[in-house]
Amino acid sequence: MTDKQILLLPGPTPVPPQVALAMARPAINHRGPEFKALWEEVTEGLKDVFQTRSEVVILTASGTGGMEAAVANLISPGEKVLAVTVGAFGERFIQICRAFGVETEVMAFPYGQAADPRAIARRLEADTEHKIKAILVQHNETSTGVLNDIQAISRARGSHPALLIVDSISGLVAADLPMDAWHIDVVIAGSQKAFMLPPGLTMLAVSDRAWQAAEKCTNHRFYLDIKKARNSGLKGQTPFTPAVPLLYGLQESLRLLKTETLAGSFARHALMRDMVRAGVRALGLKLLADDTVASPAVTAICVPEGMKPADIIAPLREKFGVVVAGGQGDVKDRVFRIGHLGYVSFSDILAGLAALENVLIDAGVPVTRGAAVAAAGAILSEGMPAGVETLAS
Amino acid sequence: MTDKQILLLPGPTPVPPQVALAMARPAINHRGPEFKALWEEVTEGLKDVFQTRSEVVILTASGTGGMEAAVANLISPGEKVLAVTVGAFGERFIQICRAFGVETEVMAFPYGQAADPRAIARRLEADTEHKIKAILVQHNETSTGVLNDIQAISRARGSHPALLIVDSISGLVAADLPMDAWHIDVVIAGSQKAFMLPPGLTMLAVSDRAWQAAEKCTNHRFYLDIKKARNSGLKGQTPFTPAVPLLYGLQESLRLLKTETLAGSFARHALMRDMVRAGVRALGLKLLADDTVASPAVTAICVPEGMKPADIIAPLREKFGVVVAGGQGDVKDRVFRIGHLGYVSFSDILAGLAALENVLIDAGVPVTRGAAVAAAGAILSEGMPAGVETLAS
Repeated sequence: MTDKQILLLPGPTPVPPQVALAMARPAINHRGPEFKALWEEVTEGLKDVFQTRSEVVILTASGTGGMEAAVANLISPGEKVLAVTVGAFGERFIQICRAFGVETEVMAFPYGQAADPRAIARRLEADTEHKIKAILVQHNETSTGVLNDIQAISRARGSHPALLIVDSISGLVAADLPMDAWHIDVVIAGSQKAFMLPPGLTMLAVSDRAWQAAEKCTNHRFYLDIKKARNSGLKGQTPFTPAVPLLYGLQESLRLLKTETLAGSFARHALMRDMVRAGVRALGLKLLADDTVASPAVTAICVPEGMKPADIIAPLREKFGVVVAGGQGDVKDRVFRIGHLGYVSFSDILAGLAALENVLIDAGVPVTRGAAVAAAGAILSEGMPAGVETLAS
Repeated sequence: MTDKQILLLPGPTPVPPQVALAMARPAINHRGPEFKALWEEVTEGLKDVFQTRSEVVILTASGTGGMEAAVANLISPGEKVLAVTVGAFGERFIQICRAFGVETEVMAFPYGQAADPRAIARRLEADTEHKIKAILVQHNETSTGVLNDIQAISRARGSHPALLIVDSISGLVAADLPMDAWHIDVVIAGSQKAFMLPPGLTMLAVSDRAWQAAEKCTNHRFYLDIKKARNSGLKGQTPFTPAVPLLYGLQESLRLLKTETLAGSFARHALMRDMVRAGVRALGLKLLADDTVASPAVTAICVPEGMKPADIIAPLREKFGVVVAGGQGDVKDRVFRIGHLGYVSFSDILAGLAALENVLIDAGVPVTRGAAVAAAGAILSEGMPAGVETLAS
């Protein structure tokens, strides 16, 4: 029965049954009136989720396509950006910039730490000629489970005109990111994370300032051209054939999120994070990221001395059907990751922690039976804000 | 009950129920062992369909993304291509080339006609310095319902070293295109056409010569980088998150195609084309393309004098639930298009023709009741090759 799985991954998320059913609807003409109604509902719904009044574009691509779209549409070859990286997806942004001829100044922080807004402020203050056209940064760094303080990074700009481009692929809906209130210029999201959909869509919300930059940008793009996407979108169409089933799924997931409310989703994800962290600590394991910067979407956990990530990941999957992720980048051999985003319930978390406890005991790690679930359960009892209705409650 | 639709579009195709069910399977880890097995089955199956021993890459994007991938991975800025166009998708190839800094020489043929291989041969003979690095051409031009003679175009190269890059997004599986036998360098396909899947995947088969060109290419690409895709693919992975449900669907559709056989699929599509053409002619309407170049996937039909495409398309959809497409490009106001590719049955074709007959009669066009179905039925009776089992039979 290990073909019955509990996915505790930092994406893809499990898909709610009503979303899966919506995606199985018969095909429609994406140039017809049925599509227009669908399109208008999802683009309006996305604005609420991005907390913006700017235009949102939806591209048929996974998240990396959205990251490329931000670079290729906004930064011309030879222009300079400040790429702030705290892990593997920050490094991916750098690779994309370099592939598109962008002069890329890297500000790197160690795996497991958040970006320091003061260092960013100092760098921008020194850029008196305003050569830096944009700051690229992750909201939630999936490889380390670190949440950057985007509000502080935005403030660190002061009067510097650089665009703030935020990869929130694994962050949006799991953690608060009020785009307009925080003066963010581009927010990038992906379908397979807290949106509870399969992979295949990336969404970008783009500020007026960023649209102006897109007008002047000379970089190469066609399929991922956000101006084409916006102009077709305003007519209820897409420039190229869209992934219609995913849009049906998105319509359904936006309805679910509306019921839960964004605040409810943030509270649920924070609580799942706290359950995982308490449970894992009760098993004697160390966490990669500090509590103060811990992601509500994914937790990176250091493997015990003398063990490799596979020693934990393989038996979790094979014996218990609990699917967690390995490490990436610098910490590939040192951590495994428990994802807790999207369509994940409190029971999934409890089951995952109980399975982990058993795997550690089987491996000879000294652990008190029941400790993880006890710690996580205590968090759950005290932690749920009164009156908050969530998908998991 | 017009929410019960018969899709007769040149994409998206209706989706077989077993494919829709496969796509609704629970999410899996795309870095795990389940994915590797799925990946290996679909990439091997695709080689049979492309009739090639070259490597096939699958990208999470719709067909235009595949066209961009061919340009951005194989042609460097400043290099020259010969873009042979017979309609709107030929024009799209030209737009992509120009967006990526490619020097694009256009050889255009009128809407409704096929490319002339002799003209291509003459142009290449004159290119004694071999400045033309590639020929770009559509196999099946979706906007006009014209099938180009790719075998003759390939032979027209003679000893010229230009790569032959063929957009077969709406052609593959509907019409024969033996990539290796015809010495084609790149074949581009899309999921939402004769593969009977929703939109969201594009597949490219790439010859050894084209892989060598990719090694040297300096154009900008990251998300659509075919080398990254191939290198990850050989390890049973994708460089970026793939659209897993579409891959499950592809697995199922490849199994269906294996049962039908490629020859059976070609015969079925040709027969549906002949039914549509006979039926439409029996209604007194004119066809845009000549019989000798008629596409087995889509038929463009001239609207009667004094009528607009919408006068036919709207009542077909509203009264009968029969969804056909409008025109594109130069013939936008002159034609409507009946698609007959993918999961379309002979009964769907007969129903569509009968509905069209009724719409014309309602509009006052002088038509003999039953004429379209009579003509199409006669084709069906004589046309099905003995012993060929098809999805529609």
